[in-house]
Amino acid sequence: MNYPNQIKKEYHKNINYANRGMDLEKMINEANEYYLEKDMALIYKKPTPIGIVKVSYENNQQKIKDAYFATQSTLDYNGLYKGKYVEFDAKNTESKTAFPISNVHKHQILHLRRVIRHGGIVFLIIRIKGLIYLLNGPDFIEFIDHTERKSIPYSFIEEKGYPLEYNYNKGLDYLKIVDLIGGFKNEEN
Amino acid sequence: MNYPNQIKKEYHKNINYANRGMDLEKMINEANEYYLEKDMALIYKKPTPIGIVKVSYENNQQKIKDAYFATQSTLDYNGLYKGKYVEFDAKNTESKTAFPISNVHKHQILHLRRVIRHGGIVFLIIRIKGLIYLLNGPDFIEFIDHTERKSIPYSFIEEKGYPLEYNYNKGLDYLKIVDLIGGFKNEEN
Repeated sequence: MNYPNQIKKEYHKNINYANRGMDLEKMINEANEYYLEKDMALIYKKPTPIGIVKVSYENNQQKIKDAYFATQSTLDYNGLYKGKYVEFDAKNTESKTAFPISNVHKHQILHLRRVIRHGGIVFLIIRIKGLIYLLNGPDFIEFIDHTERKSIPYSFIEEKGYPLEYNYNKGLDYLKIVDLIGGFKNEEN
Repeated sequence: MNYPNQIKKEYHKNINYANRGMDLEKMINEANEYYLEKDMALIYKKPTPIGIVKVSYENNQQKIKDAYFATQSTLDYNGLYKGKYVEFDAKNTESKTAFPISNVHKHQILHLRRVIRHGGIVFLIIRIKGLIYLLNGPDFIEFIDHTERKSIPYSFIEEKGYPLEYNYNKGLDYLKIVDLIGGFKNEEN
């Protein structure tokens, strides 16, 4: 598009402020870029959906003059890894004791169930107490199906989740865990 | 979101006008809704990416006051079918003799190659001469890799493509062709 780089930067800045999970997102995006560069996987963040109220034309181009951020009914990231469908979302919590289930919208939970049913790999990346865990979709669903609790205690995440660490080269390297939960053989060994 | 339905309708109207493939998109969206309802597949159109120039706060909500439509570097639709990753794009051409390859952006062609390499199912849905064809990604890539031509002649699309028809209940039912190109067994027979 015919916009200077400065505006593009502003855009990224705004988008980041619009999301609670700023740094977590950045770490995941770095991993996705690394995977793309190394031709390991094709995983992208979906664009944030918006609702457009007003569009005008300037210099023969459509410009959005009034719009609002809408909510995603699926998860934020999806793509392809070793022939398999992969989808996940990144969630932050400020709580030090539990992950509030309300952080995952009802339609996202429905979608999680569907992805499992259709044979995809689906999970959450949760930051809690400054640590980051990959919690496999089936474990998340099993928890909420067997409790009336409104949050997942940290002990459950610690027990069932897989810790992830940020790596300066790879970003938040989650694919090695996808190899485990997806039942892939580790081709390097 | 706290917006009346009228505004949401306006949004859809605007989005449709923003795309050349209005009716084709609508037919595909109907099919995707049908597949979702019948629990056959999970395939969604990605939100149109936008570049945000200005955001303001109104009633404690972020509102976009200046933005432009950006281009998707991947294809518009992706999802999950029988455990497999599926991605495609819908393309219209006014030409009656050939499909201009420039309708598929360079980064989209690169992405197509990557999806094939990683074992995904990828294709184009092309409307030409008022007819609609599903052209499998490998056939598209094979054509452009063996020619200097700037467009794909209609005869090639007619020979290699699979005709699709709109169905009042199912929309543009393309999954039956995905069964063929994806090597799935037809479970109904």
